[in-house]
Amino acid sequence: MTHGDLQFDGQGRLRHLLTIEGLPRQTILEILNTAESFISVGEREIKKLPLLRGKTVVNLFFESSTRTRTTFEIAGKRLSADVINLNPAASSTTKGETLLDTVRNLEAMHTDLFVVRHRESGAAHLIAQHVPAHVHIINAGDGRHAHPTQGLLDMFTIRRYKGPFENLRVAIVGDILHSRVARSQIHALTTLGAADVRVVAPMTLLPTAIERLGVRVFTDIKTGLDGADVIITLRLQRERMNGALIPSEQEYFNLFGLTQEKLAYAKPDAIIMHPGPMNRGLEIDSAVADGPQSVILPQVTNGIAVRMAIMAIIMGGSAAGPAPSEVRRTE
Amino acid sequence: MTHGDLQFDGQGRLRHLLTIEGLPRQTILEILNTAESFISVGEREIKKLPLLRGKTVVNLFFESSTRTRTTFEIAGKRLSADVINLNPAASSTTKGETLLDTVRNLEAMHTDLFVVRHRESGAAHLIAQHVPAHVHIINAGDGRHAHPTQGLLDMFTIRRYKGPFENLRVAIVGDILHSRVARSQIHALTTLGAADVRVVAPMTLLPTAIERLGVRVFTDIKTGLDGADVIITLRLQRERMNGALIPSEQEYFNLFGLTQEKLAYAKPDAIIMHPGPMNRGLEIDSAVADGPQSVILPQVTNGIAVRMAIMAIIMGGSAAGPAPSEVRRTE
Amino acid sequence: MTHGDLQFDGQGRLRHLLTIEGLPRQTILEILNTAESFISVGEREIKKLPLLRGKTVVNLFFESSTRTRTTFEIAGKRLSADVINLNPAASSTTKGETLLDTVRNLEAMHTDLFVVRHRESGAAHLIAQHVPAHVHIINAGDGRHAHPTQGLLDMFTIRRYKGPFENLRVAIVGDILHSRVARSQIHALTTLGAADVRVVAPMTLLPTAIERLGVRVFTDIKTGLDGADVIITLRLQRERMNGALIPSEQEYFNLFGLTQEKLAYAKPDAIIMHPGPMNRGLEIDSAVADGPQSVILPQVTNGIAVRMAIMAIIMGGSAAGPAPSEVRRTE
Repeated sequence: MTHGDLQFDGQGRLRHLLTIEGLPRQTILEILNTAESFISVGEREIKKLPLLRGKTVVNLFFESSTRTRTTFEIAGKRLSADVINLNPAASSTTKGETLLDTVRNLEAMHTDLFVVRHRESGAAHLIAQHVPAHVHIINAGDGRHAHPTQGLLDMFTIRRYKGPFENLRVAIVGDILHSRVARSQIHALTTLGAADVRVVAPMTLLPTAIERLGVRVFTDIKTGLDGADVIITLRLQRERMNGALIPSEQEYFNLFGLTQEKLAYAKPDAIIMHPGPMNRGLEIDSAVADGPQSVILPQVTNGIAVRMAIMAIIMGGSAAGPAPSEVRRTE
Repeated sequence: MTHGDLQFDGQGRLRHLLTIEGLPRQTILEILNTAESFISVGEREIKKLPLLRGKTVVNLFFESSTRTRTTFEIAGKRLSADVINLNPAASSTTKGETLLDTVRNLEAMHTDLFVVRHRESGAAHLIAQHVPAHVHIINAGDGRHAHPTQGLLDMFTIRRYKGPFENLRVAIVGDILHSRVARSQIHALTTLGAADVRVVAPMTLLPTAIERLGVRVFTDIKTGLDGADVIITLRLQRERMNGALIPSEQEYFNLFGLTQEKLAYAKPDAIIMHPGPMNRGLEIDSAVADGPQSVILPQVTNGIAVRMAIMAIIMGGSAAGPAPSEVRRTE
Repeated sequence: MTHGDLQFDGQGRLRHLLTIEGLPRQTILEILNTAESFISVGEREIKKLPLLRGKTVVNLFFESSTRTRTTFEIAGKRLSADVINLNPAASSTTKGETLLDTVRNLEAMHTDLFVVRHRESGAAHLIAQHVPAHVHIINAGDGRHAHPTQGLLDMFTIRRYKGPFENLRVAIVGDILHSRVARSQIHALTTLGAADVRVVAPMTLLPTAIERLGVRVFTDIKTGLDGADVIITLRLQRERMNGALIPSEQEYFNLFGLTQEKLAYAKPDAIIMHPGPMNRGLEIDSAVADGPQSVILPQVTNGIAVRMAIMAIIMGGSAAGPAPSEVRRTE
């Protein structure tokens, strides 16, 4: 499934953010650079820019996530948009037709941006295929498919702490099989030219043919972490496991939970990341999560700036919109 | 039940909007004309007017409705009001006394407008009888009684597409018995002088003595739609049916569901309306709902402008308030 | 448990509001005086001040309370802050560790103020111990411990109606045992030098050794109310009663429910207060609640001004923040 064309308008400007797969390196860099200029907004006394004043942003969360919804609500409000939170019962929109009726109604209200989370892969894509030219879509997580804003904030964080991607060995550890976050990270890392991207997981938590995405596969954490500059631990999606994919939580922690001992396999200055929320004592030990190499909380801080950047870029591109020229720069 | 006096203040200005029944023709026209001037706001880059800045609007939805609540939230925010969403559990306010305690508390916070939805007919009316002079009430649907903002946005839509009411034949099709929307439409259409207002439904979905409201009754859809300029289909309120009022959903669709075949009975340029949300394949076929004669999505767009107009008119009338003179015009 | 030090920063400025216990008289008076200057804001046409523009206030309600949440949402918005409402499921944050993860994530988003309600005593205190210097906490009710904003708005109301505290006899009637409100009121009244503070309740609803807080205990309402200037009735917290602490609701009303007859024991100009929501016919009779001596609704009005004052004071103290000099005065 490629969304390349759908994400850009006729003039080649980013119109939606649905997936990182197929996104040009230059577009990713523009987002990261714009986000750099937004970092300072969060540190000001008055954390407010007028870029999206008079725009209506709809948080359309068919799958509930207080945490992710909050980051988009804050990002939108700091850009002066009006933000509307909607949490339609998933039950009433199981049929694609009804999902589209919901969306058509909202766009008829002259809303400008939908931030969409849905348990079904492809939901944001389906919506983007049907909205008129002035409506923008950001995918905030669809099934197992993609979570591009998380992937981009992770790239932003890696770049801030570890410099150019060309020299980096990045290990993504844990439940790759169910993780839309891992997919988005892998596409971003390979596009940005990371030297060595690895997935580290038990066989039962690895999708078939994951190597085709350009990663190396490790089922042993010792060799998987060897020499890593960046370690990304993933949340064990307990709620998504239908069968017995792991023998027990204790055994999973023993084999793949990130502890100080296992951390020793990586480079001494490796950074530790996690998309949150963490299962402490399952995929990550508290000593590591709260230790000096952890950049888990900076990821959250960066997430606001990256989401502001994405909103400003895709909505600033509209014909008569206020061009956010003062906050954009190119590499 | 007449609310005529209650809806106007001592100077004859509209203070609350509780029902269309008894509302003077001139008042309805003032709302429609004001809404015309707000239509362009939704099409601007910056969809924001300062008319209600510093006012507090409370969406007080005892009965849940994400869709209607959203339209009022957007309308209030576009007028720069602060909007507070409340969804009190119906259980805790079953007694009138407690309902009034809730309202008295909110008005003690110096709130300015309550948008009230409640499953019991007369709830908005009861509240309006007890609030002090500076507090305004909009009825967003009370039981089977009234849904006046829906009725007014429907009139706005009819006027935009079909010109003066004096020449129009309007057919309202479906579950008239349980529909507060139908009641509000009928009162508006008769006040505005529509030439021929018809209700078309099986006997079991018609209130007794509905003719007294000034409509003609048809139980056969072929004759009911004959020569119609406007067809309004109603949502089949499945959740309100206590007994077996229709033989089966399939049979209902066969007899009263609006299809291309049945549409042929009406005028070739008839418009199709529906208050939403639609049961596709039950009261309306998708080919009709999405067809060239459908104005169902324009109804939603118009709903924002009409609700902005109502808010601006009832709140602009306060003594020291900012007079929305620049957006009002009279016929 | 004393939070005195935690509530002030190094320069002796109020940084958090966790409890009234240990709060200096001068600080309480500064809050009440600042609130006086905010009362007029609620009576203006444009109820808006720019003091907290660009600040992010998070209503973090682990225990649901539409009513209290609304007062803080209105107070924050009238000060021009961005307000985010969160209602984390209590289940997902039963462990202190996870509670802190939630908070750390929110503070990483550069939020400025958490208004915290939690069913466990000490929750707001725990959070305040862990946030960085630029984040402020207001306790909006923690278990049976404290509800300081309620206590302060009650003091504000008493001062407005009955003048200096030194001359006052105040009777707090009802479920003292489970009431965080009563604790906050007692600390405030004794700090402000009220002449005579009394608790009036059946033995089963009195905490042991309550006298140590500086109150006199009465189990008979007739002697308890004798000569009172102020009567505060408490909500009977039915949901908190594990056992049979009262014989029956009817008997409780007969013995402790405030009626016109019992009111006659107090001074003729005594005022009647209640923190709401009321159980009419249980702890208070409607004739008293709605009678001429009741100041229950003014309490709600004052609550907005007092909460605005607390927000402005604790957030105005930050280094580069806009000093709310125009709205503060000292006694």
